[in-house]
Amino acid sequence: MARVSQEHLDARRRQILSGAAHCFARNGFHGTSMQDVLKEVGLSAGAVYRYFPGKEDLIAAIADEAFDSIRRAFAEAAELTPPPTPDVLLGRVVRGVFEGQVYGLDRRTCAALVVQVWAETMRNERLARTLGEGYAGMREAWTTLVEAYRAAGLMSCDVPADDVARTLIATAQGFIAQEALFGGVEPEALENGLRGLMSMDPQKIS
Amino acid sequence: MARVSQEHLDARRRQILSGAAHCFARNGFHGTSMQDVLKEVGLSAGAVYRYFPGKEDLIAAIADEAFDSIRRAFAEAAELTPPPTPDVLLGRVVRGVFEGQVYGLDRRTCAALVVQVWAETMRNERLARTLGEGYAGMREAWTTLVEAYRAAGLMSCDVPADDVARTLIATAQGFIAQEALFGGVEPEALENGLRGLMSMDPQKIS
Repeated sequence: MARVSQEHLDARRRQILSGAAHCFARNGFHGTSMQDVLKEVGLSAGAVYRYFPGKEDLIAAIADEAFDSIRRAFAEAAELTPPPTPDVLLGRVVRGVFEGQVYGLDRRTCAALVVQVWAETMRNERLARTLGEGYAGMREAWTTLVEAYRAAGLMSCDVPADDVARTLIATAQGFIAQEALFGGVEPEALENGLRGLMSMDPQKIS
Repeated sequence: MARVSQEHLDARRRQILSGAAHCFARNGFHGTSMQDVLKEVGLSAGAVYRYFPGKEDLIAAIADEAFDSIRRAFAEAAELTPPPTPDVLLGRVVRGVFEGQVYGLDRRTCAALVVQVWAETMRNERLARTLGEGYAGMREAWTTLVEAYRAAGLMSCDVPADDVARTLIATAQGFIAQEALFGGVEPEALENGLRGLMSMDPQKIS
């Protein structure tokens, strides 16, 4: 058997996941067969099954990589002092997802893939575990940031940091859903929208 | 043919939609057949097809009714002076969706149904129109409210009202996605999270 470099293996793995991501985004998880994926990537069954024995392995690997890219965006942001405010950070994360960091998918296709993964997650234990871990990690990262905002005197309201974390994650998820459903969602709208909310004066309100 | 009251027709229609909603939430749109729906509601094919010739008609009617209930919550809130702040109003809407206003579905089943509808919308022109109209209506209603906040001096940042509208809708959508995926989402977390964000001081930040 010929020896192949790790680089080659990684490129091949990436090629397969990219093809699968395009198929899932276009036709949904249930509307895609392993045959469709083989056709999309132009590889033999043997070449593909060696890496991914089934559709579940493909979609779990795609979800894993998506979370990795979000984690990286967070880790980079968290190293800055002071930490970027939610509008800046969330804008950066959504921009990353939308601007082809995920297998070179265009914005709407990428958003559609995320919603497909959500729908599939509700009936797939393994995917539920992958997403559950990714979500828990994001909640933790945001909670730390929210505590940093409060320590720096940037957030006056004494609500649980985890609630703010969940709300910010929800906002990003909702933007992805809107792009998947209707298209035309600009990350600037999210940045502006959060700025608008942050400028509401709770003292004046209550 | 026996004459039947409008009341009876409405109850029958509701019974069918409720059964279909349970099926879709449990097994997804593609995993549900008209036979499954007939079995769930315990009616004959003739009795069901008279109202809904196919699965598409069922899911479109369900989406329509869900938007109606959200519209009602908004209309009631918008009549109050001063208008309720986003945390209060969004909390009310999400609570309504979660607390059995939609065919008596429990919280997580209801959220799962919404995500199923999103996934299906991406491949279904008719559903895309229904959701597109519902979304446009919500954006308009929120934009009017945001302008009212600004007119009342409650929002100081000069960003497009439509961007704030989209951000608030996104937050509600994300909470529904989180409930569908992970469960255990309390509307209080959304209310607290928005309050936390509203208490961030953009003057101090910039």
